[in-house]
Amino acid sequence: MDAARFRPLAELAVFGANVQPGQIVIVNGDLGHAPLVRAIAAAAYDRGAAFVDVGYFDPHVKRARIAHADPDSLEFVPSWYGLRAREHAEGRGARVSVSGPTATGLLDGFDPELSGRDRLPHLVEIPTIISERTTNWCVVPCPHPAWAKLVFPGLPDDEALERLWHEIEHVLRIDEPDPREAWEERMRQLNDSAARLSVRRFDAIELRGPGTDLRIGMLPSHVWLSGDFATCEGLRHLPNLPTEEVFTTPDPLRTEGHVTSTRPLVLRDGTIIEGLRVRFEQGRAVEITADARADALRSQVSVDEGGFRLGELALVDRRGRIGPLGTVFFDTLLDENAASHIALGGGFAFAAGEEDAGRVNHSGAHVDFMIGSPELEVDGITRSGEHVAVLRGGDWQI
Amino acid sequence: MDAARFRPLAELAVFGANVQPGQIVIVNGDLGHAPLVRAIAAAAYDRGAAFVDVGYFDPHVKRARIAHADPDSLEFVPSWYGLRAREHAEGRGARVSVSGPTATGLLDGFDPELSGRDRLPHLVEIPTIISERTTNWCVVPCPHPAWAKLVFPGLPDDEALERLWHEIEHVLRIDEPDPREAWEERMRQLNDSAARLSVRRFDAIELRGPGTDLRIGMLPSHVWLSGDFATCEGLRHLPNLPTEEVFTTPDPLRTEGHVTSTRPLVLRDGTIIEGLRVRFEQGRAVEITADARADALRSQVSVDEGGFRLGELALVDRRGRIGPLGTVFFDTLLDENAASHIALGGGFAFAAGEEDAGRVNHSGAHVDFMIGSPELEVDGITRSGEHVAVLRGGDWQI
Repeated sequence: MDAARFRPLAELAVFGANVQPGQIVIVNGDLGHAPLVRAIAAAAYDRGAAFVDVGYFDPHVKRARIAHADPDSLEFVPSWYGLRAREHAEGRGARVSVSGPTATGLLDGFDPELSGRDRLPHLVEIPTIISERTTNWCVVPCPHPAWAKLVFPGLPDDEALERLWHEIEHVLRIDEPDPREAWEERMRQLNDSAARLSVRRFDAIELRGPGTDLRIGMLPSHVWLSGDFATCEGLRHLPNLPTEEVFTTPDPLRTEGHVTSTRPLVLRDGTIIEGLRVRFEQGRAVEITADARADALRSQVSVDEGGFRLGELALVDRRGRIGPLGTVFFDTLLDENAASHIALGGGFAFAAGEEDAGRVNHSGAHVDFMIGSPELEVDGITRSGEHVAVLRGGDWQI
Repeated sequence: MDAARFRPLAELAVFGANVQPGQIVIVNGDLGHAPLVRAIAAAAYDRGAAFVDVGYFDPHVKRARIAHADPDSLEFVPSWYGLRAREHAEGRGARVSVSGPTATGLLDGFDPELSGRDRLPHLVEIPTIISERTTNWCVVPCPHPAWAKLVFPGLPDDEALERLWHEIEHVLRIDEPDPREAWEERMRQLNDSAARLSVRRFDAIELRGPGTDLRIGMLPSHVWLSGDFATCEGLRHLPNLPTEEVFTTPDPLRTEGHVTSTRPLVLRDGTIIEGLRVRFEQGRAVEITADARADALRSQVSVDEGGFRLGELALVDRRGRIGPLGTVFFDTLLDENAASHIALGGGFAFAAGEEDAGRVNHSGAHVDFMIGSPELEVDGITRSGEHVAVLRGGDWQI
């Protein structure tokens, strides 16, 4: 691959994370993301980073562990993994993560209950750090031949890779004359949608569509946000690029009904879960089923009780660039911004007022899955029980 | 490359490190060593490792740092790098390192004084951990196309890689019916040579050859050792495979004369230093020159005062498998075992008696360079000043 083609992605990554002079920047990616990781390192140093600490993850080493290690040892994580994350956040470092599969099917044939025990590269410390806003961060996608093959199996390898590049450049707005300004413009739109939702202070949100009939209780002080964050010290950053969502954190005790995913869920270990169905009672996911591999998801969320409750509700309108492509990327960063979604696991304390902060869902897990589609009807329910149309056919009604 | 061909190397690596059930195994290698790193992970888990903590080093990220970072920041290392090494050693973990260049010339064009400031992946904590014997460890070589091209520039790429594979398999004794037993036999020979040298308790060793006339003072209680180690808790391991040397730690205050390297020195960052010449006065390297890039070495050893003094003297006879090949590998692990060598930097407290332990050279640096050749004459000098022939034409005289 042409190293120069990765540069605009790298520029966008350090723009999104808003890397500051003197910061230590942790960059996480798969081995297959090396060309982008190297470009990100250069771009971060250009912005004055004190150090770029690259952590390469190798899915083949994870496979070797699951295939060869004592099954009882698979949940073990050395003490220094969490310590690095905590010390880095205490020092107010920045964080850039690279997304996109580089190998698929590596864990086929293993019992998902077994392979799910090894949750690396996920660290239980990260959701807490994100929630406490002690790091400025950004996740960006990286084209890779294995990913292209997964997304466009009917195309010759070269064409598939070129198509993936083209679509990623499009959704990242790199095809705009000034990608950063294009993002500033989109963020203004998303911030406006979030503000219009927040002032309604709905008591619950109801979602209805094929296979979905779900009522999600809201916290009284909840606010809707876009992917336009500030750290606890006020440093602005765009944590996901691309981003097309507005989101909030729900009441973890008041979700009722059932929901069916509308796009495949790809776990960090490459496991693909299609046809996911979850049924909630009193906020808890009491049934998690799927066409296949539901065990792998159950295993990921069973890290704690909070893993079975909702931490996020996000709505995506039709104006974003991902949905219209009609492409299933098999990657949460992109797919979640194509469609409305919910997440099992840790919530966001900053999406609720102080009086409700203690009620926000707490968990070491955070797994998004897509439930949106043009057919999805979204209503807001006021405290007096009135239904207000929010989304119809992907268009805002408020 | 054929993944199966790496397996015997991986088996030898965990045999050399003597990985124990329940240990955390740190595996360090370049990105280009991934096929061997993965095989080592599998082999370590097969021996019951609790966790294999792979740390991939990317020389291209190092290059990005040197090219783009503030020059004044290049010596910075995040606190958690040393902390990981110390916690791992305190927990008595094992360590496997993979050797061999995967990229060359990356730092060409940079001022060596500048590029030498970034000493990663070297950590100042490691020589202390090695010296305190709190980890069982092994370094093994890994064939790579870039390495093959460097060693055999006159051959077509495929032939060069195959030749490198063949020579590495030969020097690792993988071409023997039972490589482990072949190593046990060779270790018996080396242990015997070390024992015969130790009983002499020479006051100094004198080395004479083309460009070399050096007298190295010995500590009164010094002992000669082979690469057949035990941790402070008695766990045996073979820290270098291949190994063909016997070595000791000299008196850092009593080296006089000059020495010329007989093989190129390849620094960890890929810098190749040929024609290295070092002059010592009262144990200190007062002049370090070379045909080119001497600055890079000076920068590496200037980490502290001990970096300018000797920590190691090693003798290699003609019976090893590396010397007879006549190949310059541009890799210290292999080249140092082809020829007698000395090292600037930290010494080995365990190669002296307790009464002299405080006199052993202390430094965060340790850089071996080769001074041996068939023409090198090595004498031992007794306390009464008598000269005793030790090596002539690569053959032991004692």
